[in-house]
Parts: sequence; structure tokens; C-alpha cells
Amino acid sequence: MDIERRSGCPINLTMEVLGDRWSLVVIRDIMFGNRRHFRELLTHSQEGIASNILAARLKRLVALGLVSKQDDPSHSQKSIYSLTEPAIQLVPVLAAIGAWGRRHLPVSEDLSIRAELLEVGGPALWDDFMADLRRIHIEDSIGGANGSVTSPVLARLTQAFLDARAKMKAGAEGR
Amino acid sequence: MDIERRSGCPINLTMEVLGDRWSLVVIRDIMFGNRRHFRELLTHSQEGIASNILAARLKRLVALGLVSKQDDPSHSQKSIYSLTEPAIQLVPVLAAIGAWGRRHLPVSEDLSIRAELLEVGGPALWDDFMADLRRIHIEDSIGGANGSVTSPVLARLTQAFLDARAKMKAGAEGR
Repeated sequence: MDIERRSGCPINLTMEVLGDRWSLVVIRDIMFGNRRHFRELLTHSQEGIASNILAARLKRLVALGLVSKQDDPSHSQKSIYSLTEPAIQLVPVLAAIGAWGRRHLPVSEDLSIRAELLEVGGPALWDDFMADLRRIHIEDSIGGANGSVTSPVLARLTQAFLDARAKMKAGAEGR
Repeated sequence: MDIERRSGCPINLTMEVLGDRWSLVVIRDIMFGNRRHFRELLTHSQEGIASNILAARLKRLVALGLVSKQDDPSHSQKSIYSLTEPAIQLVPVLAAIGAWGRRHLPVSEDLSIRAELLEVGGPALWDDFMADLRRIHIEDSIGGANGSVTSPVLARLTQAFLDARAKMKAGAEGR
């Protein structure tokens, strides 16, 4: 897929590729939620992405080479979406964006705990996370999608999120 | 200005604020080009931003608290645009985006040299750059705009860009 190339500036080109409301959010859900099927990406979306927008964004991300799509061998009607190497290398970008958003925007505690852990963990944790993502998205994308291959870093981030959410719920009920 | 808050996720909220084709590009030009007047931002734009889009983006960035606008004491008809503290803290985000773009997109050599220097310099350079930006955008925004107060880091990045552009031109003429 050709992108419009108004200039050869890396910031400009990245915004031409990812500068819309949804593309990074879809990549986030595949990366941090390990949502590998269309239906999961649609129904679990925190932001309530519309079906037609999700379909268009996935198609564009596949055309751009950021997401790959393959048949799911265990569900003949389903496809598995996986991150490619360039998308996995967005981890430091997402960490920087998460750290900035957490500091300057009205985030919620549960949904920002992973950004906090990524910021505290720094480049060493990002490298571990990217190595895990390569295993579950590239080396064994089917095993990564059906849960037979897992990511220790993702498991830790997910547990922290679930703990924060449980704490928020307990706090809300105690009031 | 209220942003739509579809969820409290920091990545989602950041994309609601900055997820359009132009906002980060305008911030980039104010930050790296020290373009502090409307006319400079318009006429020097590498990407040829349209006047109405630039006006709308600046207005929105001011409303979001990322850019401040003040009268220029030496030109009664002009305004000076300056970065605020939250916008200055986008340096690590822009560094991460620049590093990713440089690696995965068809960038040009001259326009990516600053991204390379920011990546090589790492957090220590980003901190120096942010300290400089605070001086020329917040502490003395008028002196920063008229060039009586300068940024050593910006001067270095700008010189590297000019050198790379001269080298590219010489290479093109030598062919």
C-alpha cells in the first residue's frame, strides 16, 4: 500500500501511517489484549469501535504490513490477526505515548497501570516484551492466538490490570 | 477544551488529542524549526499545510493547552506561538516516533538526521533539549521567538540538518 508522502520527515510519515483515531488503538488491542480475531477486537473494545471502522482499519494495517492475516486452522470461518515485526517495534512508541498520556490526560487507574509498568520497566522490559511478542505473533502465531504459547511479560501486565480493576471495583462498592 | 473520552486508556486519550494528520506536525515545526509565527509555519511547511488547516490546528492546540498564543510586542498584527510544558514533554514521544519512522518508512536523509541524533543522544539529550525548550518557550517566549535567547541543542540539531541537506544537494549536483 502506498502512503501519501508529503515529505520524507519520519514524524510526518509516521503520522501519515498511524495518525488517525483508531489504528494505534487497534494495534494496542492486538498487542496488550492479545485479541487475534475480529469478533474479540469488536466486542471487547473499550472504546466501542464500530464494525465497519474496525474492518477498514484492519484491512489498511494489513496493506501497510503492520498486521498479518491468516486462516485459523481450528475455525474455518475465522482469521487470525498477528503483529508483524514493524508493529512489534512500536512498543517504545506506545510506551512513550502511554507515559505522556498518563501524566497529562484524564486517564483511569485500571487502564493506565500497564503504561505505568512499561514506563518503570524501561527499555529492558520493552525488549523482553518485544521478544515475547515475536514468539506469539511471528514464530508461533497460531499457538499465540489459541493460548498454547504465552508471553510472561503480557501475563504480568494483564494481571496488574486485573488487580487494578478489582481494586477500583472494591473501592466503588465500599463507597 | 473537552476531548471525547471514549475510555480512560492513556493511548486512546493521546490519540484523541494528537491522532490526526497535522497536530504533531505543527508541534514538530514549532519545536524543531522554532517557527513561532503563523506565516512561518505556513510558508516553510515541508508538507504544504493549507492555511485554513493550520489555523484550525493552532486554535485547537491552544484550546487543549499544548500551545500558548501571545501578542508579539514588536509586530502589532502578529502573534507568537509557544509550546507549553505538556507539549515540551512530547520530546520523548517525538523521539520514539522519529526512531520508528526512520527504520520502517521511506524517509529522506536530510529530514531524518535530527531523529537519528535524538535517538543516539537518548534520554540525557532529551532532558537537555526540554530544558532548552522551557527557556525559549516558557521562561522567555518573546526572546525565544525573536532569537535573542537560543537553544544550544536546537542549534546543533539544526546545523546537522543543514549539513545533511547541503551534502544531499552536492551529491545531486555531482551526478
